[in-house]
Amino acid sequence: MQISLNSVTVKERWNLAQCIEGCVRHGIAGISPWRDVLQAMGVEKAARHIRDAGLTVTGLCRGGMFPAADAAGRAAAIEDNRRAIAEAHAIGARCLVVLGGGLPPGSKDLPGAREQMREGLHAILPDARAAGVTLALEPLHPMTCADRSVLSTLSQALDLCDELGEGVGIALDVYHVWWDPDLARQVARAGTRIAAFHVCDWKVPTTDTVFDRGLPGEGVIDIPAIRRMAVEAGYAGGFAEVEILSKLWWARDPDEVLDEITRRHAAFV
Amino acid sequence: MQISLNSVTVKERWNLAQCIEGCVRHGIAGISPWRDVLQAMGVEKAARHIRDAGLTVTGLCRGGMFPAADAAGRAAAIEDNRRAIAEAHAIGARCLVVLGGGLPPGSKDLPGAREQMREGLHAILPDARAAGVTLALEPLHPMTCADRSVLSTLSQALDLCDELGEGVGIALDVYHVWWDPDLARQVARAGTRIAAFHVCDWKVPTTDTVFDRGLPGEGVIDIPAIRRMAVEAGYAGGFAEVEILSKLWWARDPDEVLDEITRRHAAFV
Repeated sequence: MQISLNSVTVKERWNLAQCIEGCVRHGIAGISPWRDVLQAMGVEKAARHIRDAGLTVTGLCRGGMFPAADAAGRAAAIEDNRRAIAEAHAIGARCLVVLGGGLPPGSKDLPGAREQMREGLHAILPDARAAGVTLALEPLHPMTCADRSVLSTLSQALDLCDELGEGVGIALDVYHVWWDPDLARQVARAGTRIAAFHVCDWKVPTTDTVFDRGLPGEGVIDIPAIRRMAVEAGYAGGFAEVEILSKLWWARDPDEVLDEITRRHAAFV
Repeated sequence: MQISLNSVTVKERWNLAQCIEGCVRHGIAGISPWRDVLQAMGVEKAARHIRDAGLTVTGLCRGGMFPAADAAGRAAAIEDNRRAIAEAHAIGARCLVVLGGGLPPGSKDLPGAREQMREGLHAILPDARAAGVTLALEPLHPMTCADRSVLSTLSQALDLCDELGEGVGIALDVYHVWWDPDLARQVARAGTRIAAFHVCDWKVPTTDTVFDRGLPGEGVIDIPAIRRMAVEAGYAGGFAEVEILSKLWWARDPDEVLDEITRRHAAFV
């Protein structure tokens, strides 16, 4: 598999232009920007630079985040997702990565938040289909359920895929699913609906529920085993996207980080 | 439901004798000791004091923890579980709470660790049955999978219950399962096998993966909804056990903590 650089991995030090140049310099063939750095560069300009650099855009991060405290908030989230779909189309992204979003502030109604997520997905699906942008539902680790993602398991995401049909797939991030006793069965069930494959590692101890991910090999995840499951299931994308949210790695020189990623990719992915 | 005090809730300041006296003083009818405080007091003496105080022992924490780096380690864990079963019997505990245990140090073999857990359970089941001690399998939150519990979901625990049969049940802790999209279905499936019901709360943000639990009402878990599911499924134990691992609450005067627990129980459980 080839490497794709998710821009969040170097977000403290590099803008998108620097990410593109960094990929070229390090022989990294894929890129996946977050919307903030994409918008900062300008979508059309970014699309041109990425194309000129010959990079594959393995995804745009991120859409979703539908649950909100009121109807206006939910409508705003849906509108924002429509803009995200247009951006993903403009840069030729293979998919828009879609997150569940957390509970609305003050709410304890988890089933209600999950229903809002479902309704949001139905609302944007026609736009995604019209633009030819695959919505890649990414279940996040259950420790993010309250504040980031009420989409918690592959099984839940695949139930939504089954319901929504054409144009919806899965973003499979080993960090979020490695613990799942049902992993092998659900990855097989996902099949060719795996639209993106993300790698990082679970460190022991993990000192922060969001910002303490490891590079491949720093933790306990058997990444090659999950990679094999994904490929056997039908993932033919050929890229492993490196998405590291880490205060430790953010403090390092991005060229060092990309060296580490390249070195570790061969050994641990 | 009545309150049961899990000794870990006040572990920094009270020994088991003080826990027993504290329960009586605060009108708390149940207790669930951890083995360290039980052994420190002496099992027979503790059994007598608990009985004299008229407390129901809702559980003994904790057995399990089977995965180990070598055969000697696995055999030692099984022997230790046999002692835990004897202790649970001696104090008249309704169950021995059984944890999965984490990955052996340096291992990335999660399926292998789960198989070791399964083998350990089979090894101690005859002892548990002979002693009349229910093994209450407690799935822990997936964020503890690497270092504490390869038993991650209710579904996985109930598959083990189905396999092991008579004498094995579930310890249902809202903190560990509240996020599960399959929660309602699995609690219904558990039925009368729910041997213990534990409460605490998920705080936002959560700053530590082990030691930052909240008292009921401090977080986002809809505890009454899960209590109702458990009772409708067949949990007739009548106790909600308060098990709070929290550096913040450990720093407080235990009498204040028990006041808070009693006050919050009525409103949030």
